[in-house]
Amino acid sequence: MRNSNRQWILKKRPVGDIKPGDLELVESPIPVPGPGEILVRTVYLSLDPTNRIWMSDMEQYMPPVELGEVMRGGTLSVVEQSNNPDFKPGDVVNTFTGWQEYAAVPMAQKMPPGVPLPAYMSVLGATGATAYFGLLDLGKPQPGETVVVSAAAGAVGSIVGQIAKLKGCRVVGIAGSDEKCRHLVKDFGFDACINYKTEKDMRAALKRECPNGIDIDFENAGGAILDAVMDNLAMKARIVLCGMISQYNATGQMAGTNITNILMKRARIEGFIIIDYLPRFGEFIAEMAPWVMQGKIKYDTTIVKGIESALPSLDMLFTGKNTGKLLIQVSDEPK
Amino acid sequence: MRNSNRQWILKKRPVGDIKPGDLELVESPIPVPGPGEILVRTVYLSLDPTNRIWMSDMEQYMPPVELGEVMRGGTLSVVEQSNNPDFKPGDVVNTFTGWQEYAAVPMAQKMPPGVPLPAYMSVLGATGATAYFGLLDLGKPQPGETVVVSAAAGAVGSIVGQIAKLKGCRVVGIAGSDEKCRHLVKDFGFDACINYKTEKDMRAALKRECPNGIDIDFENAGGAILDAVMDNLAMKARIVLCGMISQYNATGQMAGTNITNILMKRARIEGFIIIDYLPRFGEFIAEMAPWVMQGKIKYDTTIVKGIESALPSLDMLFTGKNTGKLLIQVSDEPK
Repeated sequence: MRNSNRQWILKKRPVGDIKPGDLELVESPIPVPGPGEILVRTVYLSLDPTNRIWMSDMEQYMPPVELGEVMRGGTLSVVEQSNNPDFKPGDVVNTFTGWQEYAAVPMAQKMPPGVPLPAYMSVLGATGATAYFGLLDLGKPQPGETVVVSAAAGAVGSIVGQIAKLKGCRVVGIAGSDEKCRHLVKDFGFDACINYKTEKDMRAALKRECPNGIDIDFENAGGAILDAVMDNLAMKARIVLCGMISQYNATGQMAGTNITNILMKRARIEGFIIIDYLPRFGEFIAEMAPWVMQGKIKYDTTIVKGIESALPSLDMLFTGKNTGKLLIQVSDEPK
Repeated sequence: MRNSNRQWILKKRPVGDIKPGDLELVESPIPVPGPGEILVRTVYLSLDPTNRIWMSDMEQYMPPVELGEVMRGGTLSVVEQSNNPDFKPGDVVNTFTGWQEYAAVPMAQKMPPGVPLPAYMSVLGATGATAYFGLLDLGKPQPGETVVVSAAAGAVGSIVGQIAKLKGCRVVGIAGSDEKCRHLVKDFGFDACINYKTEKDMRAALKRECPNGIDIDFENAGGAILDAVMDNLAMKARIVLCGMISQYNATGQMAGTNITNILMKRARIEGFIIIDYLPRFGEFIAEMAPWVMQGKIKYDTTIVKGIESALPSLDMLFTGKNTGKLLIQVSDEPK
């Protein structure tokens, strides 16, 4: 084992797109676990649109990452050394140790074997839970309703659409390429999918695919796509505001949204953050794990190797180069 | 009785501010009630911001008024002639016969005596019900929470604030003059009131008056005031979207609203229309009538005389010249 822990440090708050020097890859010594602590080696690092929010000092749902700190991120790790009798080397644990190769922590949640590790970082992790609670708890889909999902080929969106199908809804995805659209319809059972990059008139396209209006919009995009959704709401529509990825790299004022139809259609927009649902993760796993085992819910992962790839890969989320969950494989899975 | 029924007819859909010729005051013969019908004489006509919406062909919650039709509006009337055994001349009835002096209708809801008639058009009518259901059903105020009300000296806003006080909340109004603000604090028990016309920095003013953030915003204004509210939301805030009076005379695109904090604060915006609550009016009257009788809820009315004053008076709502409910007294109350 090299005595080197590569870490991505936030040096400057990015303005607009992230620029060279905003984050820096540095080498530190591997930490030595103190009494009762465990040393964990990062296997997978989750890249998420919200990473961009954490780099900024905009008003947000958690404190931003401080300058000089290791960049924050969800991780799946393996125990390398343990001073804690509850853990032994080789245990796979759910961690939140950020963009680095090693960390010493007092404890972590052990993950049971029998599941491909990337599933813990996607469909059976925070990503799947975001789709599950956002759609079911806020959206409350009823059979026969029409559900629109933006960033539909993304990690969350692709699962939202499949759950909505299991609940008997018509599901219309919005994604950024014909290939993604074909995949969502053919492999994931979406009823239709609109390529927002080639579609000239999103309002008309949504009207065509949602002739009875949109009952639920699971919103990951914001901006112009949300405006087109707003013009096609059904009465009593619910907009589940999960993210607004189109806006995170904005400089200056973010685009405003015309909320007139929230009034006219007696509709609702509600924001949520998955950390509020941590106490209810058991419910989610109990329903989602069988769906995944039975093949009723499928999931994609895009895996890029090496901690050095973390920053260069983040932009894939904003340009739509990933399909499904984007992970950095920082080190090998345990044998 | 003159055989003349003066009526305001919608001739053109206004663009921006209403202009001469958009509506026209015409004289028609007083209608003759058919078999089973009653002839009603309008006593009070309700003027409401939503009248402006009904004149336009924007997407809205009811069909717009057709060109050539009598302008729509809520009314309180007295029965003049009756071919219906359930009604007799002198009965006071709740009607929706619009901007005219007389109408023949098959039936109408009789209003019990003992209440000043303007109360039926305000605190004990759709106006009071809008305040009641919007605040309690959508806002769900808890003791100790902070409630902000825009257009606070208006018919709905002034009642919202008083109900919120009865529910143990801190209430901060936003109104358009120092006199209105003083009145709301001194006479209606608001904790504070901000004059948005003289306040230079609404964000800072709301921050000062709502040090723990805004838990509930009862939104009647929209536009810049709503943006300032958005920047001061407490976690899990509820925005009850009742109206956006600042936008109804807009030409072209309405102002967009920055909804980022809906996401960041896990907040909610929900629109509603009081007609959805008609089946629950009994609940409202059962709680509100005693409050009004006991003087716990006060109400203002601004009364202008004559059907010819309807259109010239409507603009008072948009320039803030009324306090409380704006009514046109079309004819004398029955003795």
